[in-house]
Amino acid sequence: MLGEPDFDVLRKRAFNLRWATVAADVIPLTAADPDFPAAPAAVEAIANYLRAPHLCYGPAAGMPEFREAVARRFREQKGASEVGASRVVAANSAANAIALVASHLLKPGDEVVLQDPVDFLVAESARRAGATLRYWKTTDGRFTLEGLAAAVTPSTRMLSVCHPHNPLGLLWNQDEVIAITKFCSERGIALLSDEVWSDVVLDGASFSSFAAHATAACAPWVIYGLSKGYVLAGLRIGAVVAPSDDAAARFAATMGFDQTIEGASTLSQVAATGALQHGGPWLAEFLRHCAAQRDMATVRLSKLRGLRIESPPRATFVLFVDVRGTGLDEDAAAQRIEQFARVRVVPGSPRWFGPGAAGHVRLSLATTRDVLDEALSRIERAWPQIAR
Amino acid sequence: MLGEPDFDVLRKRAFNLRWATVAADVIPLTAADPDFPAAPAAVEAIANYLRAPHLCYGPAAGMPEFREAVARRFREQKGASEVGASRVVAANSAANAIALVASHLLKPGDEVVLQDPVDFLVAESARRAGATLRYWKTTDGRFTLEGLAAAVTPSTRMLSVCHPHNPLGLLWNQDEVIAITKFCSERGIALLSDEVWSDVVLDGASFSSFAAHATAACAPWVIYGLSKGYVLAGLRIGAVVAPSDDAAARFAATMGFDQTIEGASTLSQVAATGALQHGGPWLAEFLRHCAAQRDMATVRLSKLRGLRIESPPRATFVLFVDVRGTGLDEDAAAQRIEQFARVRVVPGSPRWFGPGAAGHVRLSLATTRDVLDEALSRIERAWPQIAR
Repeated sequence: MLGEPDFDVLRKRAFNLRWATVAADVIPLTAADPDFPAAPAAVEAIANYLRAPHLCYGPAAGMPEFREAVARRFREQKGASEVGASRVVAANSAANAIALVASHLLKPGDEVVLQDPVDFLVAESARRAGATLRYWKTTDGRFTLEGLAAAVTPSTRMLSVCHPHNPLGLLWNQDEVIAITKFCSERGIALLSDEVWSDVVLDGASFSSFAAHATAACAPWVIYGLSKGYVLAGLRIGAVVAPSDDAAARFAATMGFDQTIEGASTLSQVAATGALQHGGPWLAEFLRHCAAQRDMATVRLSKLRGLRIESPPRATFVLFVDVRGTGLDEDAAAQRIEQFARVRVVPGSPRWFGPGAAGHVRLSLATTRDVLDEALSRIERAWPQIAR
Repeated sequence: MLGEPDFDVLRKRAFNLRWATVAADVIPLTAADPDFPAAPAAVEAIANYLRAPHLCYGPAAGMPEFREAVARRFREQKGASEVGASRVVAANSAANAIALVASHLLKPGDEVVLQDPVDFLVAESARRAGATLRYWKTTDGRFTLEGLAAAVTPSTRMLSVCHPHNPLGLLWNQDEVIAITKFCSERGIALLSDEVWSDVVLDGASFSSFAAHATAACAPWVIYGLSKGYVLAGLRIGAVVAPSDDAAARFAATMGFDQTIEGASTLSQVAATGALQHGGPWLAEFLRHCAAQRDMATVRLSKLRGLRIESPPRATFVLFVDVRGTGLDEDAAAQRIEQFARVRVVPGSPRWFGPGAAGHVRLSLATTRDVLDEALSRIERAWPQIAR
């Protein structure tokens, strides 16, 4: 049901460090964009919609069907039983949504605490809003409240989290989410939770969204997207789940949605709605596949001298591998893996993942069993040269 | 070939003041979004693309096919023979492109000269960038160099023009474009030209883009879009034509395209590329229809007591009607037209079109002959009540 990738097509279409950008003999395990065709429910929804080929201006904050489908997903599968469609604003990708929310909430000079390591988009967005950054560092591979308390100052205006966590694959349970929410509300700190990975939770674990904890004292802004769970990266479809109906309306008015400056393609919203309504069985199979890929890659890479995987990811389809035991830094490791194994990985550069990512590389595992097997075999064979 | 609108579908899909937002017995001649189905070439291109349903991340600045198709359109039909694909950046609508270019070029306190009246997006974008506004007013219904000189001060940082002009339907010829370019380059004033209407030029007239006049002394930034000419508003697909390859690359890097924060849906780019490559015959018929609609509306509305059309539009499918002869202001006129004729038009509010729009209403004519005839008949019958 997952569908077979057409690698000839991927070589034309898959940008962002992937097949269309690498040498013909290189396997890219780079950007977090699966090799599989998009979820069929999304493609079918587009075809159905185009039977009447009217592509008019949609509503400013998003199509009612899309907003309700996202809200329902949060109510039914993310523990946020209070989320209604009016809290949802359709956005031109999760990345764009993060930048807009950061711009909406921050002013120059504000201090933002973010995880280290973490995907670069929050740091990039906070910098664009003129904020200064402080880092919540891991303790034994986990983000603890003590670590958070050490990062926060009286000037901290916002905490930004990635939940589930890219690149570590960490997944907070409901108690942890509540504790973080409580920490922020007690200190009057705003919360931005990037939950773009929240459909990619493995091993049947449940996901607990910060959107469930919108109160007078704490107003979490949640980011959602469909690029990871339904393979729709090209459609640039994401959403903001605001802390209240009023907050969503103000956000849409202030940030340019009501003026047609911001917004998401209606066809992308149609695809996303189809995926959310009818893509359940497909997603279940995709998640089983991701778990199996993770297991295979974790076992085989852990056996290589100098490599270490702190804990196998409980969510996401990326693997963050510690290469410091090889004596190589992240750039040298990535460069040598490509040179000798003809596999491209993403170096854990401070620029992309924060200072705490140094000495790591990230692999995206969302390809076929055969391609991942081949990539791992190449790395295994070349390891004596790579890590000499 | 234009295709028949499906009004039942429009009542569900057409937002932004149109069918989905008005009472069942009201005809909306409001937002500049045609009632016709999208250009078939766009819809076919989507269907072809989805035969291989890979919806991967596209390249940051846009798909090569899209960028080349836009560049070719400017080379072959807009007099800008030097424009290559590397000057084009795909954007999430023309509206978004205007806001991003304004933000890229302006800093708080900068002074921007814009036409009055003109579509609100440039003013809105300049305000968001913190700029102050000055107005280039019409002289006998035209924008003259003398009028421009009267608006410019030593602090003027940018001139923004809408070409062809919404809502007046004015079309500058090549000499006028050159004269304006020269005026700006002599004074070191940046130029932003909103050419979203440049495919909708009537009566076989030719269009002369500011993009043809990029020199060391003058670096015009041009906005393009496909919502007007090919009925793709919902897809939010536009483009920036930067003054040089380097300027385009810097824009994409600085404004967030290279970081996936900004960008256009690949499927929207595919649709746009199809329209540009194969939509020529469809567009020709659409333009003939728009000219006929303009002629009918101009003749019939001009006969109504108190209405005046300064000069029939040479481009666009909107008609800007002076209602001052009725003694009504723009809001009262629009309100009474809806109340007594059950037709909604857009009042020329300062908020939407600048102070010079007062005393006017705007009608969008891009519907069927029958619907426009019915709307005009209703207005004619109700005119004694409306303008009593």
